[in-house]
Amino acid sequence: MRFSKKIEHMGHSPIRKFHTYAVEAKEKGKRIYHLNIGQPDIETPPVFFEAVRQFSEPVLEYMPSQGIPSLLKEIRDYYRRIGVDIDEKDIIITDGGSEALQMAFTCICDEGDEIIAAEPFYTNYNGFLKSAGGKLRPVTTAVEEGFHFPSKEAIRAQIGPRTKGIIVTNPGNPTGVVLKEEEIDWLCELAVEYDLFLIADEVYREFVYDGLEMTSFGKRRDIRDRLIIIDSISKRFSACGSRVGALICQNEELISHAMKLAQSRLSVPTMDQEGAAALYRIDPGYFDHIKKEYQKRRDVCYEGLKAIEGVICQKPAGAFYITAKLPVDDAEDFLIWLLRDFEDRGETVMYAPASGFYETRGLGRQEIRIAYVLKEEDLRRAMEILKKAVEAYRAR
Amino acid sequence: MRFSKKIEHMGHSPIRKFHTYAVEAKEKGKRIYHLNIGQPDIETPPVFFEAVRQFSEPVLEYMPSQGIPSLLKEIRDYYRRIGVDIDEKDIIITDGGSEALQMAFTCICDEGDEIIAAEPFYTNYNGFLKSAGGKLRPVTTAVEEGFHFPSKEAIRAQIGPRTKGIIVTNPGNPTGVVLKEEEIDWLCELAVEYDLFLIADEVYREFVYDGLEMTSFGKRRDIRDRLIIIDSISKRFSACGSRVGALICQNEELISHAMKLAQSRLSVPTMDQEGAAALYRIDPGYFDHIKKEYQKRRDVCYEGLKAIEGVICQKPAGAFYITAKLPVDDAEDFLIWLLRDFEDRGETVMYAPASGFYETRGLGRQEIRIAYVLKEEDLRRAMEILKKAVEAYRAR
Repeated sequence: MRFSKKIEHMGHSPIRKFHTYAVEAKEKGKRIYHLNIGQPDIETPPVFFEAVRQFSEPVLEYMPSQGIPSLLKEIRDYYRRIGVDIDEKDIIITDGGSEALQMAFTCICDEGDEIIAAEPFYTNYNGFLKSAGGKLRPVTTAVEEGFHFPSKEAIRAQIGPRTKGIIVTNPGNPTGVVLKEEEIDWLCELAVEYDLFLIADEVYREFVYDGLEMTSFGKRRDIRDRLIIIDSISKRFSACGSRVGALICQNEELISHAMKLAQSRLSVPTMDQEGAAALYRIDPGYFDHIKKEYQKRRDVCYEGLKAIEGVICQKPAGAFYITAKLPVDDAEDFLIWLLRDFEDRGETVMYAPASGFYETRGLGRQEIRIAYVLKEEDLRRAMEILKKAVEAYRAR
Repeated sequence: MRFSKKIEHMGHSPIRKFHTYAVEAKEKGKRIYHLNIGQPDIETPPVFFEAVRQFSEPVLEYMPSQGIPSLLKEIRDYYRRIGVDIDEKDIIITDGGSEALQMAFTCICDEGDEIIAAEPFYTNYNGFLKSAGGKLRPVTTAVEEGFHFPSKEAIRAQIGPRTKGIIVTNPGNPTGVVLKEEEIDWLCELAVEYDLFLIADEVYREFVYDGLEMTSFGKRRDIRDRLIIIDSISKRFSACGSRVGALICQNEELISHAMKLAQSRLSVPTMDQEGAAALYRIDPGYFDHIKKEYQKRRDVCYEGLKAIEGVICQKPAGAFYITAKLPVDDAEDFLIWLLRDFEDRGETVMYAPASGFYETRGLGRQEIRIAYVLKEEDLRRAMEILKKAVEAYRAR
């Protein structure tokens, strides 16, 4: 039997190889502060569970492939509230943002086609793209510049004859970067100039700090027919385990193609859609509180990092991640050492080494991604441990 | 912007084009008996909803990409009960059988690779295969032979240098065929001889009638390392809207590749997995009652079809479908006529025209698929309407 080349070229989750070290550490009674995963600890709004519990049909049936009408309507209304004028027909409900990404790449890429993304990027872009036969072309950004695009020309330099689109995460994972208006202009202009799709992954849209305003690509009229928005309730409402996302596009042909994929997998889970519809009915004031909480946590992490001699990072303005450069040769080796050889009063920390977020080999080796999804006091303690660990590691 | 060739070559659901006719008929007050969709009317066992309601975690978190431990264990135990000795490590929980199929094809097929299937086949095989870049090579079976494989040589004749696997649905959709031991031998022998994967879609496993025993491919030791079982709770427990399925394989390398896909989409909905685990704890005696109910319905449909002059069909032994040849030129035209121009006391019927289930152009034009998922009295009435309609149509 032969496997496909595409699956052989696809990597395992870069986090995975550290799992066994974490298990061993826990078996030895060590407590680990998990800064490595983007699983928020914020309570899922109870209306989700109430809506699910109220489901009273005797048969759990397939729903329409596009999604249940009530959820389509709620998402339309949500977008209109944030100034993006879409209709229900522009939306397909998906199994998390993940499926929306898979659909977008499958609709666009054949073997050898390319999609441009800033690196470091959300690793799973690469997985979805490879399974669609495509390839990611990275525009390198740097920690020293807060992971902003270096210039319009740097993006243009990556566009080739097989380029079909640009994907952008805003606010960014793993960087927390929030794009400047200028960067948004560059991306839109290049998409139009080279006739590319623009895939905007805006699942962290609400998490923007310091009073900054987040501009959705959905407000840009010049890319109206080439914009594909990837969305999800996972982070917005801390409902990762519901797996409800959406693909949003005003290009009717793209929606028609994506509907073929939606129809073939029949539908998205019924009860999770009911729960999701209830979440979108929550008063938008809900996000003020969450935002404040995350901003406080970001400050704790950022200040904690700055207190470590030799760390390079800029204060990110969005999402709940910071990518920082540590004064160590290899953040993967350091992580293994943290889990296996280090402890401070029986405790240690775990982060995501950043090299897996880069396409260009050798980049990001000294960098780590921290997800600030723990309570403030836990974050403080985690940063204290990290500081002590870096010092001990360098003093070996 | 350019779409991918693979999405352009993919068709919309063949059922879709008749939807508008059905809507118009309903708007005119016509009642339609839906024999066209495989959505059972059997009540979902209440334990599913109870398990979901009992979920009491405050945060709806991601679950392990492989699936939740309790569900993996229940599925393992279920398989052991039916004589298939697997471990938890051989199972990946998926978003319905649909995702298990997508994973299998993605792990096996690059652009131009081929998978063999009996035609007529479950249409979505084609969709999943095309989005993985692959191609379906059909072995034609005929209504006159009850849709059994004509011979081992007929299967062999379709195997070429790009063939990577064989997919088989047993019991069959859309045919209801239950494979004979001889056919199972042919398939296993050819898979070994040509070093192919064998994908066994056994989601209708429990629905086998007339006291027949269903042999799972999982019992065959000779194909142990090349067998991929596709499974789902949708039909087994009438829980289509939960979208919980599984990919089962004892080839560790395949599981390792499929896990890359599982990891990239993070996890399957948490609460649906809890519900599914509860379903697998139901006493296996549950199926006796369901089986009796479906067998009765099958008899009603089969006898109803035989009572129509000129109909060709054989009594199928499994699943809840019958594919029959009608004495009409074109079953699609006849369906439009049924919806638009015909009624009997304000009522009409809808079925799935079978041409969409064939890969070979021109085949199946006179054939229809009936799903017997309605109550007995409704089925009786539907078959009576169909008989009157065929007579009226031919007398025009």
